[in-house]
Amino acid sequence: MKVITESINFSTKGFSDIKDITSMINNKIKDSKLRKGIVTVFVPGSTGGLTTMEYEPGLIKDLKNLLDKIIPSNIPYFHDETWGDGNGFSHLRASLIGPSLTVPFSDGRLLLGTWQQIIFIDFDNRPRSRNLIVQLIGEE
Amino acid sequence: MKVITESINFSTKGFSDIKDITSMINNKIKDSKLRKGIVTVFVPGSTGGLTTMEYEPGLIKDLKNLLDKIIPSNIPYFHDETWGDGNGFSHLRASLIGPSLTVPFSDGRLLLGTWQQIIFIDFDNRPRSRNLIVQLIGEE
Amino acid sequence: MKVITESINFSTKGFSDIKDITSMINNKIKDSKLRKGIVTVFVPGSTGGLTTMEYEPGLIKDLKNLLDKIIPSNIPYFHDETWGDGNGFSHLRASLIGPSLTVPFSDGRLLLGTWQQIIFIDFDNRPRSRNLIVQLIGEE
Repeated sequence: MKVITESINFSTKGFSDIKDITSMINNKIKDSKLRKGIVTVFVPGSTGGLTTMEYEPGLIKDLKNLLDKIIPSNIPYFHDETWGDGNGFSHLRASLIGPSLTVPFSDGRLLLGTWQQIIFIDFDNRPRSRNLIVQLIGEE
Repeated sequence: MKVITESINFSTKGFSDIKDITSMINNKIKDSKLRKGIVTVFVPGSTGGLTTMEYEPGLIKDLKNLLDKIIPSNIPYFHDETWGDGNGFSHLRASLIGPSLTVPFSDGRLLLGTWQQIIFIDFDNRPRSRNLIVQLIGEE
Repeated sequence: MKVITESINFSTKGFSDIKDITSMINNKIKDSKLRKGIVTVFVPGSTGGLTTMEYEPGLIKDLKNLLDKIIPSNIPYFHDETWGDGNGFSHLRASLIGPSLTVPFSDGRLLLGTWQQIIFIDFDNRPRSRNLIVQLIGEE
């Protein structure tokens, strides 16, 4: 059994930009030589979240609309009074979706469904460069 | 330390059918002979989710009502234009609740509260046969 | 590789009382002597949840307001007919936010962002004494 700490880097546009990070995670598993275990993907920050979805253009729009409805970006938040950066809605969306996703792998591949992708959502209100933690625990 | 990959199978009715899968998970721990570790339950698909609740008839109704309110099934979604299968709401509910749940166990049993059960919710709009991944990491 | 099962204890005021438990978790990692691995924090109960946030007074208010809006405490729930303890809203909030959070650590410290804290939210409708499971898996 081994623990391997890796990270992945990419750019986002913010404003609920949804990125499919599945192949980046699968590559980290391949590089690790681990055959069986779990991978924990983690957002070290408070304006991004992780979940899975069928990554197709219709659902990408639907998910953005849902987030706008539940946590609107155009109403006042107390957070914005504290810092003045206007991203209170980004923080709330991140806490709701959550910063951590653990996915099992076997035979060196993620055990995802055929139409299921791992996504990172950047809830911030500006383009960002993102660095996510990819921690693998498993055996060769 | 060992990694063991198992799965559980069951039928659902769809439409936010909520299944208590606690005893199925506890049985997998018992069969594994592991005494201490974590179990990651994972939905390999994009229309189901995992969380915990007190599994009693009142709350089961409340949780379905809540999901209907936040993500209604009777409004149009862009996803439905893509595939025509009318389950855009199922996908969104699944992304919100999340496909992964990690629970610690000790002395060969899940460390749940007395009135807390692990539930799978089938958000799809038809009956399904479901197969969930149960990955155990721990020691004997 | 080792598995270590610990717990943390603290009091809450209920009613979406949000507690920053980051230093308690970091102390458990330090005591464990593990350098690299994952920690799974788990709520053994069905009226509390875990996520991360920037722990500042404005956002604390915003998050409480959001929960009151999505899952109001002043409307009837079927759960309240079952038990009469009036905390149906607490259970629903707990199922939505989720009882489990897995965070990677390296060099003996949580891999959190600079302005990111691990929070426990007590959704119950009364003050509580809480005991959370902290399960560490990793190597020295």
